[in-house]
Amino acid sequence: MAHHPAQHENFTRRVPDGDNRERFVCDDCGLIHYDNPKIVVGAVVTYGEKFLLCRRAIHPRKGFWTLPAGFLEEHESTEDGARREAYEEATAHIVIEQLLAVYNVPRISQVQLIYKAHLTEPVFSPGIESLDVALFSWDEIPWDELAFPSVVWGLNQFREIDGQGPFSPFTNPAGETVSR
Amino acid sequence: MAHHPAQHENFTRRVPDGDNRERFVCDDCGLIHYDNPKIVVGAVVTYGEKFLLCRRAIHPRKGFWTLPAGFLEEHESTEDGARREAYEEATAHIVIEQLLAVYNVPRISQVQLIYKAHLTEPVFSPGIESLDVALFSWDEIPWDELAFPSVVWGLNQFREIDGQGPFSPFTNPAGETVSR
Repeated sequence: MAHHPAQHENFTRRVPDGDNRERFVCDDCGLIHYDNPKIVVGAVVTYGEKFLLCRRAIHPRKGFWTLPAGFLEEHESTEDGARREAYEEATAHIVIEQLLAVYNVPRISQVQLIYKAHLTEPVFSPGIESLDVALFSWDEIPWDELAFPSVVWGLNQFREIDGQGPFSPFTNPAGETVSR
Repeated sequence: MAHHPAQHENFTRRVPDGDNRERFVCDDCGLIHYDNPKIVVGAVVTYGEKFLLCRRAIHPRKGFWTLPAGFLEEHESTEDGARREAYEEATAHIVIEQLLAVYNVPRISQVQLIYKAHLTEPVFSPGIESLDVALFSWDEIPWDELAFPSVVWGLNQFREIDGQGPFSPFTNPAGETVSR
């Protein structure tokens, strides 16, 4: 693929000939830069019977609790990305076990890869994007203060398969449509 | 997220203040458009004991055989994308069973989600990106003419788990590094 954006400085946002969507088009040579869906990587992280959650210091959903997760960076593998996010948001070193779920949010062109992971010791603290980080037993989880539907899905699906050996990753729960 | 590229027409490719990489920056308001890793969706598709492969009509690797796969589009779920690619490249309607593998190619910022799928009837024909489409028994697979390493990985990993019930998706095989 002869696509080297660094050599192209000026772009206009317009619909190329023969296309039906706006793209970045190089003013000098017509090169088209395509937008892509975004990949979120994260993990349901446990220590013993407890779940690691982060209280968001940033919008959206500031003040609500979430899984450590965020956008995959360029030139990063999905597992490296999930580990990086856990370190950035919770100063925690996680051990990834297997892929828990692939969630699709096509409305915002987002694909979430959520891993099953654990801590080897209860060492963590809030990173710059978190107000607080804590371990919760199942009954202590602040269900009314979780930031996103996929946090609820991930916690519940983790519980379905914990201790059961290999499993096929979950997708969006039934009824949580993936339609556009 | 107040990011509406359609409202921004002119972009310059440059390193924003406080950043260390080139981004698309709106000339008028400074809005930054981030690049993202790309998601490839595809499937190892079988009909009975045979595997569906497509001979590429386009570069790269024109003339070589591949799985039906391609870039996920915006506002598309990963399973919808895998079905669309099978239809575009092989005029085939596939039934997805479960996620076979997540391959990472961080060198080119690519994440591949490859599903296990099957045909309900042997109906297919070359789409515009294919020179030919065919079903191969395991011993007939043109191993020396496969387009990409991940085609080899997918076929071999499919064979490891076929008929075994739920399994955790594969990743890059050992030794096929995911490092940068």
